[in-house]
Amino acid sequence: MSNGKSIGIGVLGCGRIGVMHAELIAQRIEGAHLAGVYDVVTESAEKIAAKFNCQHFTSPDALMSAPEVGAIAICTSTDTHVEVLLMASKYRKPVFCEKPISLSLTETDKALKAISDSKTPLMLGFNRRFDPSHRSVRDNVANGTIGDVHIARITSRDPSPPPIEYAKVSGGIFIDMTIHDFDMARYVVGSEIVSVYATGAVRVVPAFAEIGDLDTVAIMLQHENGAITMIDNSRQAVYGYDQRVEVFGSKGLVGSDNQMMTSVIKRNDEGTQLAKMPYFFLDRYIPSYIAEWNEFMGVATGKIQPVVTGADGRASLVAGLAAWKSVREGRMVKTSEIVG
Amino acid sequence: MSNGKSIGIGVLGCGRIGVMHAELIAQRIEGAHLAGVYDVVTESAEKIAAKFNCQHFTSPDALMSAPEVGAIAICTSTDTHVEVLLMASKYRKPVFCEKPISLSLTETDKALKAISDSKTPLMLGFNRRFDPSHRSVRDNVANGTIGDVHIARITSRDPSPPPIEYAKVSGGIFIDMTIHDFDMARYVVGSEIVSVYATGAVRVVPAFAEIGDLDTVAIMLQHENGAITMIDNSRQAVYGYDQRVEVFGSKGLVGSDNQMMTSVIKRNDEGTQLAKMPYFFLDRYIPSYIAEWNEFMGVATGKIQPVVTGADGRASLVAGLAAWKSVREGRMVKTSEIVG
Amino acid sequence: MSNGKSIGIGVLGCGRIGVMHAELIAQRIEGAHLAGVYDVVTESAEKIAAKFNCQHFTSPDALMSAPEVGAIAICTSTDTHVEVLLMASKYRKPVFCEKPISLSLTETDKALKAISDSKTPLMLGFNRRFDPSHRSVRDNVANGTIGDVHIARITSRDPSPPPIEYAKVSGGIFIDMTIHDFDMARYVVGSEIVSVYATGAVRVVPAFAEIGDLDTVAIMLQHENGAITMIDNSRQAVYGYDQRVEVFGSKGLVGSDNQMMTSVIKRNDEGTQLAKMPYFFLDRYIPSYIAEWNEFMGVATGKIQPVVTGADGRASLVAGLAAWKSVREGRMVKTSEIVG
Amino acid sequence: MSNGKSIGIGVLGCGRIGVMHAELIAQRIEGAHLAGVYDVVTESAEKIAAKFNCQHFTSPDALMSAPEVGAIAICTSTDTHVEVLLMASKYRKPVFCEKPISLSLTETDKALKAISDSKTPLMLGFNRRFDPSHRSVRDNVANGTIGDVHIARITSRDPSPPPIEYAKVSGGIFIDMTIHDFDMARYVVGSEIVSVYATGAVRVVPAFAEIGDLDTVAIMLQHENGAITMIDNSRQAVYGYDQRVEVFGSKGLVGSDNQMMTSVIKRNDEGTQLAKMPYFFLDRYIPSYIAEWNEFMGVATGKIQPVVTGADGRASLVAGLAAWKSVREGRMVKTSEIVG
Repeated sequence: MSNGKSIGIGVLGCGRIGVMHAELIAQRIEGAHLAGVYDVVTESAEKIAAKFNCQHFTSPDALMSAPEVGAIAICTSTDTHVEVLLMASKYRKPVFCEKPISLSLTETDKALKAISDSKTPLMLGFNRRFDPSHRSVRDNVANGTIGDVHIARITSRDPSPPPIEYAKVSGGIFIDMTIHDFDMARYVVGSEIVSVYATGAVRVVPAFAEIGDLDTVAIMLQHENGAITMIDNSRQAVYGYDQRVEVFGSKGLVGSDNQMMTSVIKRNDEGTQLAKMPYFFLDRYIPSYIAEWNEFMGVATGKIQPVVTGADGRASLVAGLAAWKSVREGRMVKTSEIVG
Repeated sequence: MSNGKSIGIGVLGCGRIGVMHAELIAQRIEGAHLAGVYDVVTESAEKIAAKFNCQHFTSPDALMSAPEVGAIAICTSTDTHVEVLLMASKYRKPVFCEKPISLSLTETDKALKAISDSKTPLMLGFNRRFDPSHRSVRDNVANGTIGDVHIARITSRDPSPPPIEYAKVSGGIFIDMTIHDFDMARYVVGSEIVSVYATGAVRVVPAFAEIGDLDTVAIMLQHENGAITMIDNSRQAVYGYDQRVEVFGSKGLVGSDNQMMTSVIKRNDEGTQLAKMPYFFLDRYIPSYIAEWNEFMGVATGKIQPVVTGADGRASLVAGLAAWKSVREGRMVKTSEIVG
Repeated sequence: MSNGKSIGIGVLGCGRIGVMHAELIAQRIEGAHLAGVYDVVTESAEKIAAKFNCQHFTSPDALMSAPEVGAIAICTSTDTHVEVLLMASKYRKPVFCEKPISLSLTETDKALKAISDSKTPLMLGFNRRFDPSHRSVRDNVANGTIGDVHIARITSRDPSPPPIEYAKVSGGIFIDMTIHDFDMARYVVGSEIVSVYATGAVRVVPAFAEIGDLDTVAIMLQHENGAITMIDNSRQAVYGYDQRVEVFGSKGLVGSDNQMMTSVIKRNDEGTQLAKMPYFFLDRYIPSYIAEWNEFMGVATGKIQPVVTGADGRASLVAGLAAWKSVREGRMVKTSEIVG
Repeated sequence: MSNGKSIGIGVLGCGRIGVMHAELIAQRIEGAHLAGVYDVVTESAEKIAAKFNCQHFTSPDALMSAPEVGAIAICTSTDTHVEVLLMASKYRKPVFCEKPISLSLTETDKALKAISDSKTPLMLGFNRRFDPSHRSVRDNVANGTIGDVHIARITSRDPSPPPIEYAKVSGGIFIDMTIHDFDMARYVVGSEIVSVYATGAVRVVPAFAEIGDLDTVAIMLQHENGAITMIDNSRQAVYGYDQRVEVFGSKGLVGSDNQMMTSVIKRNDEGTQLAKMPYFFLDRYIPSYIAEWNEFMGVATGKIQPVVTGADGRASLVAGLAAWKSVREGRMVKTSEIVG
């Protein structure tokens, strides 16, 4: 779908998520085409470039400066995000950046200042906001359908734990996993998080204990508007990717339930069986990524302001850091205590 | 729950359905008490009388004439209904009668004439009309919620076939089983049946073929108002008692889905499992029988006219006879062709 | 259903819950009959006695000492429970007692010691344990179906708040409402509560703030076996009585979902509508009360030991007191800190 | 996604369905690319060619003979299918053809003979077979999960009627709409149709009566293996695209239920609301079209034989003609009676 009016996207990082974004850009996004890719492992970039019939660049700078690259997608590992964002702020091309910006609040603020000072349009990759079901929950809350928000519940469980090597550098479960739920809580409740109480345990992979991480956690949030959010996460739900959001208020509730892979129902002498659940995010959230890209194309063409901003990325990082502090100190932690 | 203002009910027939009615009357029905029971097998009556602390009578006439019996429930075998109804018409006490009245239309008409001439209040036992879910379907249709009725679908499947001895004298599947669905079709569609096309097979119990019965049938009805009803029955659904009704019209649809024994949901690596379905009518329809008795108490106290009448029993018998004729002759049969 | 072999139950207290128990005993419980009732308001007892055709007693002592009273149901107001239990321990007749035993742990222990010393059989009224759906959840967990328990979630919301006069003497939301959920958590998880973190707000009825109560709360429990339970309560869910329990573990999850009043489904150009939810506990939990009474009859006849004991009542009271302490002190409270 | 190993597809017909296929080929199908398009209206072809960056041809022959066209998709109007298939049989390139082949059985047979004689690979466009839910129903039946098949039920309703001009040349509802359900019945039951009983009415658009068509129909099929299928169709379901299939047998049932647009659930004082249903086939069946194309690519590369053949197209046409005959003659019609 490339023509003169389409915007060329350059993708930095050809890992799992980068490849997914590259494929969507190449095939599914109106008004966009895949202009080129870069990866620190040259062969990875070459392979993706061949597959999608685009250029491969040998450095982030080469990609960013190329005239055929009209907008940039940052899908490299988290520890490179700040450096790449600083570089991008020089080119002022619209940027899509995967979350989190950084594990460090200070570094995050440095990157966001550069982005802001340079007036570089930046959109953060909280894809779940674009899931049609979760979005409908948010819209119903925002429209007043359920009245004042009293309680939100978010369940988010992965099908299987990540490699221990990933967990070592990811910032731990509150930063690499719950961060999506902190953003979801802010999104559906429509109010900032003022305090965090978190607890958890290692129940799935004993090795997580050795690196100070957890695999089973429960979190309670207080919002500015008085609402309370309860979140639970597990790194291993054997039945699949459990993704539920529910908001309860003075006039009722609205929630997004799990979705099955098919609408098949079986009945026999043992009971009733439904289909399997999606195994992981590629089975569940592709429509959200497409909607996210359509949104970003509005940003890239200057038609709309980003609705998922650097400030959103920062706020969820703060909540994640507060959660770790809460676990360490065994008490409720105010987000205002997290200062870098 | 017996006091001076309550009406004593005499139950004729202490088989499975008679015992169920006796127990409900003894324990669950406001304004009623079990005055006495009769059964052709004396020990059966004695046992039930002892269990529920009431009299047992040695003849239908003795029960009907007893002053403490204010209303009569006919739960004897179908072949005795006409004789008992004729007898009841002499006492003019309110009568509840299980369906069908008779396998013969002529005999049915004879009984109904006596009941009518004597102004004996009579209510037929089409209990499913009182099921809260099916009743809500009917109410939604009657209130115009779905507009003009175009298509109704009724699935009704028993968990296991009746004894062959029962089937020999029951009038066959269209009379002993589909009769409920003919009544349901008339009830929810709100219009008389004008023609019947039926087909079927013996798929479950080969012995049914030897007595000319079927165990798997499909029926298509045309109603006076232009609606079409599709019914399917099986004498053996291994997963339980399948009872579904759905009505589709110009403004939407309304249906009553199956109900599970509990609201339990399980998820594991094989998928999602729901609870078992009700096994048979005692698991599914007790609330309908209680509502039926509450309705009958209104009839017995003269406060309301019966809403399930002898004419309703007759209409469903006609449809059942038309279905048999349709199978025999391989064509659509008008109900007006069935004349006794 | 009264005969020589049936046990006469005497009901103390003819308020809403006492009348419900009296009616069930009178009509629905095999092997039991309603021997008599007492209420501090004589007219209330007379009215119920007349309705169910039993005696009314003029004092708790008269009821307990009557030879026709074989077992005792304590349904009086909470502040009388200890005194009545002390009295009952003299008669050693089997006792069913509504929860909580007392708002005071010291008083509770005094009553339980007398009951224990006298070997009086005592069963506490945590009826939700007997709900077929919740019980199935527990059974699945206990049978190992979901492996080790990691996270439990309990949502329990009432349709409308109680009178402020009730809340003033009830011990507040954690004692009058969450107590059911503390018991449910212990029941389904199968492990004692070791710590409680609670938070909450007044969102529904401002007057609750004046008496120091809350109407919207969230609670996090840690269990001895490492499981975490998350509970949320509201005193006002406009859509009805929200009662959900879910347990997640190493091999999957099992939960009991809400139940609708009917299985009706409607579809029109606005979407799909399901039936209403039960409005309150009389719509939802009658089967649980019947099962509870059947269980108690086993206790009363000496066939089984009570499965819901004084210790269960004590444990949930401790959790409730810990929750209040947690709210007051803004920290996680160990149940071992609650010592009377 | 074009590279040297990919097969160029030429699409004949740029109406709604042709454009959909062209878009899928251009963007979603591994191993395929859109080589060119043709339409009898030149501007339509030019527009699509411009949009997807491919050639446009000025005649079917030009498209079929082009070396860059490796396989052909016939999406022109039904009345041209036979002529185009005859032409395609000269080139022997693999052919995908939308259903039906023709409204005339004689013409259908003429086309199929040419295709067969020339050994041209042909796959018919019964896309619903590739819907993951319906396919799972078929697989469960084929694997014996439900035992012997006794009864199948298919509900298929469109959201709104087609233009009267379309209905005039479409062959009527049994050929333009029920044909999908005849194919589905053969697919899920796994047995040929031996007889058809059909009835129907004009309830939605009075003008359909003037052209001899129907808009509300019910059909009963008998299969070779003794199974009975019940189908109902409406040209107007105000709630959306109703697509349900269910098969019942000796060991249980398996069905594919409707799917909602999102998994949102709302509860308020009026009840529970679910999301809207898909409006029409573009909302519901895109995954089926993609799977269909993936299947066809196996055919086009010679790796597999077509699983949806000309014989399948013929069998459903025969059933449709039998349905019209059944309506005209008011009787059950054997498919063996339909001879051209």
